[in-house]
Amino acid sequence: MQDRDRLLDCVERALGELPIDRVEPCGLYAPIRYILEDGGKRIRPLLCLMGADLYGGAPERALNAAVAVEVFHNFTLLHDDIMDQAELRRGRATVHRKWGESGAILSGDAMLILAYRILQDGAQAFGGADRLIELLRVFNRAAMEVCQGQQYDMDFETEARREVSLAEYVEMIRLKTSVLLAAALEMGAIVGGASAAERRALYEFGVDLGLAFQIQDDLLDTYGDERTFGKTIGGDIAVGKKTFLHITAMERATAAQREAIVARGEVGEKLSRVRGIYDALGVREAAEEAIGGYFDRALAALRQAHADPRRLTVLEEYAYSLMKRTK
Amino acid sequence: MQDRDRLLDCVERALGELPIDRVEPCGLYAPIRYILEDGGKRIRPLLCLMGADLYGGAPERALNAAVAVEVFHNFTLLHDDIMDQAELRRGRATVHRKWGESGAILSGDAMLILAYRILQDGAQAFGGADRLIELLRVFNRAAMEVCQGQQYDMDFETEARREVSLAEYVEMIRLKTSVLLAAALEMGAIVGGASAAERRALYEFGVDLGLAFQIQDDLLDTYGDERTFGKTIGGDIAVGKKTFLHITAMERATAAQREAIVARGEVGEKLSRVRGIYDALGVREAAEEAIGGYFDRALAALRQAHADPRRLTVLEEYAYSLMKRTK
Repeated sequence: MQDRDRLLDCVERALGELPIDRVEPCGLYAPIRYILEDGGKRIRPLLCLMGADLYGGAPERALNAAVAVEVFHNFTLLHDDIMDQAELRRGRATVHRKWGESGAILSGDAMLILAYRILQDGAQAFGGADRLIELLRVFNRAAMEVCQGQQYDMDFETEARREVSLAEYVEMIRLKTSVLLAAALEMGAIVGGASAAERRALYEFGVDLGLAFQIQDDLLDTYGDERTFGKTIGGDIAVGKKTFLHITAMERATAAQREAIVARGEVGEKLSRVRGIYDALGVREAAEEAIGGYFDRALAALRQAHADPRRLTVLEEYAYSLMKRTK
Repeated sequence: MQDRDRLLDCVERALGELPIDRVEPCGLYAPIRYILEDGGKRIRPLLCLMGADLYGGAPERALNAAVAVEVFHNFTLLHDDIMDQAELRRGRATVHRKWGESGAILSGDAMLILAYRILQDGAQAFGGADRLIELLRVFNRAAMEVCQGQQYDMDFETEARREVSLAEYVEMIRLKTSVLLAAALEMGAIVGGASAAERRALYEFGVDLGLAFQIQDDLLDTYGDERTFGKTIGGDIAVGKKTFLHITAMERATAAQREAIVARGEVGEKLSRVRGIYDALGVREAAEEAIGGYFDRALAALRQAHADPRRLTVLEEYAYSLMKRTK
């Protein structure tokens, strides 16, 4: 397995060399450069390159797949920020705050097209036209599922939708978050020359890793440390978002507790009130158990990926680092 | 050349059979069905199928390309309507008026992905993976150019942008309108087995036809007959849109006339005032001349497409009918 930092360098360089620099019209491309240059952990492209490397394929051959997935992911962030009316993203003004909503919608559209363009341009490196079509199939399905996940996420937050089950929630985050991690891994594996069974194993690894990661994000939003989490603690409770914690609590709560969970209040008061109920109901432990369960399932799937054990270890270590766990 | 109505039937049936019926989540797919079912002239898919038929390829083989282009076109209408804050489209409430802006953004995104999915599904009918890649290349370029055209269109209408030249305007409508007609034709020709020169000729035909068509739309907006045009006459003048007519007038006008063109006023008064200046400056004739010029160029390009003359005639007749001209 090649050094993670070297793979990250590849990704950053490729993102920096996209055919959107000094191209007119400026209003279309400046927002794309803006959102792509502000970093992020580049989890998806790294997983894609690692997926290719697992099977001995030179990871550079999967670079266009990795970059296409990252461009797609940032496109979803850009449009989600409009839908959520978010003001800030990674500490900077969101695209629609800076360029207006129309510009943000259009630049997002152009990013989605750009992702396909990048995939198309990679055909030769991937190993030919048939390979490209296999990648397109995986990418198209994941892309559509991400839209489905975002729709469920919006549906769940409407006034009319009072109850969301844990199963529905897990399905929503699977679609919204997990399938793109899974697709990135599978696309890398395709370029690397993996068998169908190996591809499936890596895909499952990605799905379960994504679920563990997202539920951990829910947990940290309520119980995390502001200095390391990077977002304000308690945001989900403040807006009453139906997270893993909220739904688990509502399932376990008495009628009185349920009322106390949804009652309005000053932010600090609401946070300590709701957290108190969560503590009483063992919600934190339930979340930790779910995270551990999905993470273990992810590792079990990874062991089915039949790659060189030494190479597998590096991907496994990356998974641990994403979960901020030690092996 | 097969009967135009039969080709239209093929398109409508394929649109009706898209994999979006009875699929969850409903909020994502209902707007897609809504915008696709409200008709329109299906110009792009018809041109695509006719392009395939020109070279003797069974037009059905190009059906997924035709439908992908139509889905893409309707995606642009859906998102453009948000950007323009349009209330009505073909006499019905726009998607964002009916489902809200967030839903409209997301359904549009799903439509764009769906267009690629439809293309991917057509690989076998097109003639294999290499063919699909050729189609993707043409489609991706056109799709990105349509976004560029929309960006220029928005740029031209900002307060800061006082002057737009006729050349800039023509380039904007080439990108926003023409290249998709051209790409539809070229994609059909690719499936039909046309040579590179023939593909290019059909593409040029589409570009010039699109320019003639768009400038005619500008002309009808000011000088048309409301019963046949389908939109309110004078809409462009009412909002001061920088159309072919407006720009031509501004280039020819005295300082006093320029002021009179941009001055506000009650709708009916403004329409007759501006139309009077247009008449005095020969703007109507200039537009008619440009339309005729582009249309003639389109026909000349078509004659370079080296297809069976009998088949060419049908495409030529369709072009005449689009321009509401007789041969």
